Amino acid sequence: MRLRAGLLFASDSRTNAGVDHIATFRKMNLFEAPGERLVTLLTAGNLATTQSVVSLLRQRAAGNEPHLMNLSSMYDVAELVGRTLREVVSRDSEGNGQLNQGVDFGANFIVGGQIRGEEPRIFHVYPQGNFIEATEDTPYLQIGESKYGKPIIDRVIDYDSSLAEATKCALISFDSTIRSNLSVGLPIDMLLYKSDSFAPAVPHRITRDDPYFKTVSQGWGGGLKRVFEQLPDDDWFAAERTGQ
Amino acid sequence: MRLRAGLLFASDSRTNAGVDHIATFRKMNLFEAPGERLVTLLTAGNLATTQSVVSLLRQRAAGNEPHLMNLSSMYDVAELVGRTLREVVSRDSEGNGQLNQGVDFGANFIVGGQIRGEEPRIFHVYPQGNFIEATEDTPYLQIGESKYGKPIIDRVIDYDSSLAEATKCALISFDSTIRSNLSVGLPIDMLLYKSDSFAPAVPHRITRDDPYFKTVSQGWGGGLKRVFEQLPDDDWFAAERTGQ
Repeated sequence: MRLRAGLLFASDSRTNAGVDHIATFRKMNLFEAPGERLVTLLTAGNLATTQSVVSLLRQRAAGNEPHLMNLSSMYDVAELVGRTLREVVSRDSEGNGQLNQGVDFGANFIVGGQIRGEEPRIFHVYPQGNFIEATEDTPYLQIGESKYGKPIIDRVIDYDSSLAEATKCALISFDSTIRSNLSVGLPIDMLLYKSDSFAPAVPHRITRDDPYFKTVSQGWGGGLKRVFEQLPDDDWFAAERTGQ
Repeated sequence: MRLRAGLLFASDSRTNAGVDHIATFRKMNLFEAPGERLVTLLTAGNLATTQSVVSLLRQRAAGNEPHLMNLSSMYDVAELVGRTLREVVSRDSEGNGQLNQGVDFGANFIVGGQIRGEEPRIFHVYPQGNFIEATEDTPYLQIGESKYGKPIIDRVIDYDSSLAEATKCALISFDSTIRSNLSVGLPIDMLLYKSDSFAPAVPHRITRDDPYFKTVSQGWGGGLKRVFEQLPDDDWFAAERTGQ
């Protein structure tokens, strides 16, 4: 989420290659120079692809070519991530012929952060390497299993929401998704960044036992049930029921 | 939904062939003989396919072969719908070569109802023609744009829920989906069936102005916001915020 107050990044940590091969991998990757830049990459899709892209970006950040640690705008950073993604997908998928066996080598990235001289920005980089940027009208981006958790964000978040509201909403959104879909699981990695702070990043890992996550999860579940129960039954339904 | 109390069917009515070709089509089809049987078909997917399947089933219901109005179990009805679906997809897609242009001819059906001598039953018929049946453990089935509206059903519905609760939940589920996805739209067609009633079906069409839909939609939206606001902020967030 890219709000006036700052940025919030959140990612789950479940990967699967079929239901009998489920594992935990961090999907949040940080590149930072406190005082000057923070770049965060969240990943979804083929794990071989996303790991390779992150490894190459990290390896090359020591080199002479333009890289994540010396580019002067987040736009250029998103373009570099897109280019590196295309490079890896081409390398891994081309010329294999039958070997590919219908495997999807694609991946999606959320690329966000702030570089001194710019506002904080976030981008969604598609498997094709092109990308879109979040704006004030649509201040959040999602990748991966995004649908279950979208309605609550649409209802409560706008550009002027606080980082505390964003945190609460992100946890509810993940909680709903985790309940409805096996491919999303705890722990959740979360990072808050206050606009123009350029402070060292302090990611927070939320496990099943995290007291705040428990409070939000139980409070939300109980609250929803109360709201549901307090809504009235329908008249036409009552007619239908007694009419038989 | 297949509950102890009976069945609830609900479908939206939006179809699209790209965002510049959006139309309204009823996706709920009834075959009934009050006192003896009710068979309801809900459809999702390629509209040419779903209309053809329904037309063929209706046309053949006057013939001598086994058909929807004389089969003696809902299982056989689901099997016939699956077979007819395979027939239409084969007819429309095979031998076209380049003409297909990547079009997906597939469709999904929910087939449900009650035939005298059986319990009420509902099935999900897949594009391949095979099918699954809802059970007491998982008393609901969804087709089409199902993810946005799934979390609320998972939270409040079980086999012993009342038909009034089911109605309320289905409207909330559709309301959330309609807010988050352009391909789902009002009106909603809804049908309630009380177990063993074999009463004439009275479908209810819910438009934007339906007073109960308005009550539920506004009450739910307002209630969610209240629950959200009442949940506390996090301690670690407060530390993060003041630490900078």
